[in-house]
Amino acid sequence: MANDIEVCNWAPDEDADPATHTFTFGGREPVISVKPGTIIDSWSFDCFGGRVKSASDMSTQVCDPRFLNPQTGPFYVEGAEPGDTLAVHFVSIEPREAWGVSTTVPFFGALTSTPTTATLQPALLERTWIYELDLQDRLVRYAAADTKFTAALPLDPMHGTVGVAPALGEVRSSLTPGNWGGNMDTPEMRAGVTCYLGVNVEGALFSFGDGHARQGEGETCGVAVETAMDTVLILDLIKGAPTPWPRIESDDHIMTTGSTKPLEDAFRIAHSEMVHWVSDLTGQSTLDSYQFVSQTALTPVANVVDTNYTMVAKIAKDYLGNVNVMQGMHQKMRARAAQWHEYQKGK
Amino acid sequence: MANDIEVCNWAPDEDADPATHTFTFGGREPVISVKPGTIIDSWSFDCFGGRVKSASDMSTQVCDPRFLNPQTGPFYVEGAEPGDTLAVHFVSIEPREAWGVSTTVPFFGALTSTPTTATLQPALLERTWIYELDLQDRLVRYAAADTKFTAALPLDPMHGTVGVAPALGEVRSSLTPGNWGGNMDTPEMRAGVTCYLGVNVEGALFSFGDGHARQGEGETCGVAVETAMDTVLILDLIKGAPTPWPRIESDDHIMTTGSTKPLEDAFRIAHSEMVHWVSDLTGQSTLDSYQFVSQTALTPVANVVDTNYTMVAKIAKDYLGNVNVMQGMHQKMRARAAQWHEYQKGK
Amino acid sequence: MANDIEVCNWAPDEDADPATHTFTFGGREPVISVKPGTIIDSWSFDCFGGRVKSASDMSTQVCDPRFLNPQTGPFYVEGAEPGDTLAVHFVSIEPREAWGVSTTVPFFGALTSTPTTATLQPALLERTWIYELDLQDRLVRYAAADTKFTAALPLDPMHGTVGVAPALGEVRSSLTPGNWGGNMDTPEMRAGVTCYLGVNVEGALFSFGDGHARQGEGETCGVAVETAMDTVLILDLIKGAPTPWPRIESDDHIMTTGSTKPLEDAFRIAHSEMVHWVSDLTGQSTLDSYQFVSQTALTPVANVVDTNYTMVAKIAKDYLGNVNVMQGMHQKMRARAAQWHEYQKGK
Amino acid sequence: MANDIEVCNWAPDEDADPATHTFTFGGREPVISVKPGTIIDSWSFDCFGGRVKSASDMSTQVCDPRFLNPQTGPFYVEGAEPGDTLAVHFVSIEPREAWGVSTTVPFFGALTSTPTTATLQPALLERTWIYELDLQDRLVRYAAADTKFTAALPLDPMHGTVGVAPALGEVRSSLTPGNWGGNMDTPEMRAGVTCYLGVNVEGALFSFGDGHARQGEGETCGVAVETAMDTVLILDLIKGAPTPWPRIESDDHIMTTGSTKPLEDAFRIAHSEMVHWVSDLTGQSTLDSYQFVSQTALTPVANVVDTNYTMVAKIAKDYLGNVNVMQGMHQKMRARAAQWHEYQKGK
Repeated sequence: MANDIEVCNWAPDEDADPATHTFTFGGREPVISVKPGTIIDSWSFDCFGGRVKSASDMSTQVCDPRFLNPQTGPFYVEGAEPGDTLAVHFVSIEPREAWGVSTTVPFFGALTSTPTTATLQPALLERTWIYELDLQDRLVRYAAADTKFTAALPLDPMHGTVGVAPALGEVRSSLTPGNWGGNMDTPEMRAGVTCYLGVNVEGALFSFGDGHARQGEGETCGVAVETAMDTVLILDLIKGAPTPWPRIESDDHIMTTGSTKPLEDAFRIAHSEMVHWVSDLTGQSTLDSYQFVSQTALTPVANVVDTNYTMVAKIAKDYLGNVNVMQGMHQKMRARAAQWHEYQKGK
Repeated sequence: MANDIEVCNWAPDEDADPATHTFTFGGREPVISVKPGTIIDSWSFDCFGGRVKSASDMSTQVCDPRFLNPQTGPFYVEGAEPGDTLAVHFVSIEPREAWGVSTTVPFFGALTSTPTTATLQPALLERTWIYELDLQDRLVRYAAADTKFTAALPLDPMHGTVGVAPALGEVRSSLTPGNWGGNMDTPEMRAGVTCYLGVNVEGALFSFGDGHARQGEGETCGVAVETAMDTVLILDLIKGAPTPWPRIESDDHIMTTGSTKPLEDAFRIAHSEMVHWVSDLTGQSTLDSYQFVSQTALTPVANVVDTNYTMVAKIAKDYLGNVNVMQGMHQKMRARAAQWHEYQKGK
Repeated sequence: MANDIEVCNWAPDEDADPATHTFTFGGREPVISVKPGTIIDSWSFDCFGGRVKSASDMSTQVCDPRFLNPQTGPFYVEGAEPGDTLAVHFVSIEPREAWGVSTTVPFFGALTSTPTTATLQPALLERTWIYELDLQDRLVRYAAADTKFTAALPLDPMHGTVGVAPALGEVRSSLTPGNWGGNMDTPEMRAGVTCYLGVNVEGALFSFGDGHARQGEGETCGVAVETAMDTVLILDLIKGAPTPWPRIESDDHIMTTGSTKPLEDAFRIAHSEMVHWVSDLTGQSTLDSYQFVSQTALTPVANVVDTNYTMVAKIAKDYLGNVNVMQGMHQKMRARAAQWHEYQKGK
Repeated sequence: MANDIEVCNWAPDEDADPATHTFTFGGREPVISVKPGTIIDSWSFDCFGGRVKSASDMSTQVCDPRFLNPQTGPFYVEGAEPGDTLAVHFVSIEPREAWGVSTTVPFFGALTSTPTTATLQPALLERTWIYELDLQDRLVRYAAADTKFTAALPLDPMHGTVGVAPALGEVRSSLTPGNWGGNMDTPEMRAGVTCYLGVNVEGALFSFGDGHARQGEGETCGVAVETAMDTVLILDLIKGAPTPWPRIESDDHIMTTGSTKPLEDAFRIAHSEMVHWVSDLTGQSTLDSYQFVSQTALTPVANVVDTNYTMVAKIAKDYLGNVNVMQGMHQKMRARAAQWHEYQKGK
């Protein structure tokens, strides 16, 4: 494509020993080093590493619990230092195959006891559902297992897991979300948005994975319509601007996230981040911004199933007036993405 | 209007001693008795009983804490018995005046410590904001206090508080939400929707209040754009059909609510209610319904500030196929509301 | 007994219709009016109203859910007004019979899902255990149902439920604890302690019940060793001294309580109350008191099963120096109790 | 000492660059390898790395946030494999110096907002208190900063942080507790007890630190009476016996722990672990054990301030009859410790 844009095609090796894949944020050598502005044209495994392929595959039988939610990466971003912000723009997120899979997993999910919300009750039944993906008509076809009920749902591809290496030398499982990003599981992480992540270590060490053909808000049973994904994204840097918790920008909205337990604390994080962000953007005092956010925020739940729960706060840019968000990074990224799409058509 | 529809014009007395108003669900003699199907054409005070009128009125100074959030009602619905469901259809919800008011209240709100999330920190500053309501252009005009920032937000009138008398002989403050409804503070409670409430005592004892010209999801600072409201609603009964937690139906969605703390438990209530409801509506098994809801639910937060927090789960009717929700009550109500609107035009 | 001490022998009527008993705090006419300083010599039903009598009685079958946890009272205390503190000294708490009972209850308890921590799992098995109480040797004899395991545990009688009418015109089920006291379920509420309750309505309207022959901290399965209790207590007033949350004083410790969810908020209430109380007693600044309490508090859990959870913070009086707690009420009560015990021996 | 007992004197280097110390569980090369049964005779820094030495040292000014809570270790235990249990017996825990230190830290503690319980309020004042330790009379001398109040409290030395490398390749900050142990901050971790930790990686990689001269239950302000500690402990292995969450055994009690948020979930973990443990020890069914634990458990809070909260459940061995706990490891350790004490006297 354009001469000034680098494209990186590093991709996971489907035939490699699963133990060699990336299952943590932090704690792994980078797979490759890229310059800010690089387009990553790659793909990611589904959360089961591709091992759950039919309604008779039970994840607890076919998967090794050490090898769940493999990530693509980590990518070392040249020049990234603690205190910077990594901008990740999703150019396109497309299922690699025409099927997706969901399951119930014993003692995992929002409507069952878990190892931490521990009860003495037996687990719910383990079951696997295979979804047909109609990539032409952009539909996800659901079929009940016990009855003939079916439904055609909109295809809405997204990445559940997006993040960088954590602070304090920590290494965190790709099953956990936190201020480094990770397994946030918000449907807002779709193509066309830019995600902002605070850099904690040199090179940022960015990874992504856990593609979902679609997901309800909360990911109630703990498993979305899981698919391997062909994903194109752009990595860029905002130097000297820290981002304490992951943020997302779409054409229409700015969003903040918070990931912790209990869920009201995830809400508090996301909303206090939003109050401060809106205050910065509009010049309002903190108290005015608190008032303004209270009347304007949308608050869709992301997940209530992972080892931390994630909440999103979301405000329409229209309400903010003419503000300059993150030095115009999203617009710059959008333009670059348009160039890419143009180039792809031309191929 | 039409001969077969009764209209009840009972309304609160603006000049009465505030102590005579209704501040609880349960514990009050009904103000009037109505037949199922009756249209209530009434109005409600704002949550401050009209006492906060300018930016210099501080609610803690001008309001008596015993007399916050006055309700219109309770209405005794003839024939309502424990085990029935009360259907409440909002025909119209319109601000009575061209202004609304919001405030910060010391130790109340999601981004401050409170009497239960108790810390040793000082309170945030108390402040009052007056909003101009443009009822013509359907706008709510916000102006910051400390800077010149302004914003025009969509008018989106709703009732924060809607409920019946609780079970077990309890009487609950109108500041609290629970399975009797009450102070749920969800923006989904707007004109055009039908709210379903389980009946706990003879006559149901329905009340409503706490009008908001608009509100963010979560009602973060604890106070929306508060206004007295002119409200028309229809009360009807579904005999012999219990409703454990309040539900809402719009033309496009079915919704369940849960109100408790921590917030993940409010989520669990709303989503388990939704799983069971979808199972009933579509004939799916519980496990299939759990799967289906996990991929289709929207989950907007209602409030994270009241003495219980409220969560809403929401599913598009389109995904459910041709289902019969609550014996077609919403459609019936919609038709009756259309009749009313027709009649009003003709007046 | 002594001429200057009044004794009130009002007691519940065992043969009356259960519907006539008291199942709420607030919302009931007082059963009798007493002067401050009166000794109440009465008794209370067990939490099942005496209906679970053998291992084959299942509480969900033999009890009406509307008639659980009957209270003895309410007693109207002459001169009690909002802003005062009611002092309740337990002179003696003795099982009325030589047996107690515990059960599991479907969807109730800390290690099961519940109506608010809602999951889709089936309930745990319902079961009833009968305990033999050896009142001579002060033992509670446990026998496992499925094996031959037995254990002799110390008898440690207490009241799970102690409270007054709530504020804001609320009426609360006797199954719920809060700032009015109620179903706190702390083993600290044993004979020899004084409980301090803030008065919310004229006459205070004090009730008590839910006797336990003993209880673990947390009351994990939701049901202690339940027994009807013969109880002697003294009611007195501290005028003009509000008590925001129930407090307890023993010969050796001062204690504060907090009741809400999540449990960390119950902790925050109890500990912030303790910080302020210690600050008042010792003249320390709030920050010093925070430090002092952080190094000295014991924090036994009360209950994690009721509709609110209860936490106790507890500090040895020895650490406080020579302080005057609640105007010396506990010592005064102790002296009066000694008089009573003396008088009883002489009878 | 005795020929068959190895003693390891590895100790941290006081003069080394703080960056070279251990601040995580996992992620560090072992400092030394020891055989099961080895006595470790070592010491640990206080949580500030010794940098807060006077009332004018503010921790946020004199400490680098990356270098808080340094640990002694990790020790590689020969033969330790995933699925084993590491037994850690504390032979003696003695303050290295005659002073300890506590502080308030901005936005850290149970009675302040924090980065996760985020509010818009200002931080509490930062302050440092120096305690005099009277090692002869076994007292911790407190002196208020703002008044002349003083108190002499019992010396009760303990380790706040004790743990092994986590599972799933995670590396966790020494500020966090979890199922690997870590920063549990329970006063029960005193000399004379044995702590059982599940092994997650080869060699277990055991570390300890965060000595407290004493601590209230809950560690309310977030900081106990912090001291460097001279500590003697014994490491041993129970092969093939996994321990899902850390357990503690004293001469009189068995204890389980749970660390997560919200606090009721920490309670649920600790109590479900206890139910299963008691069931294993006594042969009771799970339901009987649930009943038995409900009437016998003590439940002291450990901490409500760290990034996970920790709860302890505790049962008197007397109630259990003649049971064999962890293959008699505690008794074996006690005997070995007695040998050591004997040997030390003889030196």
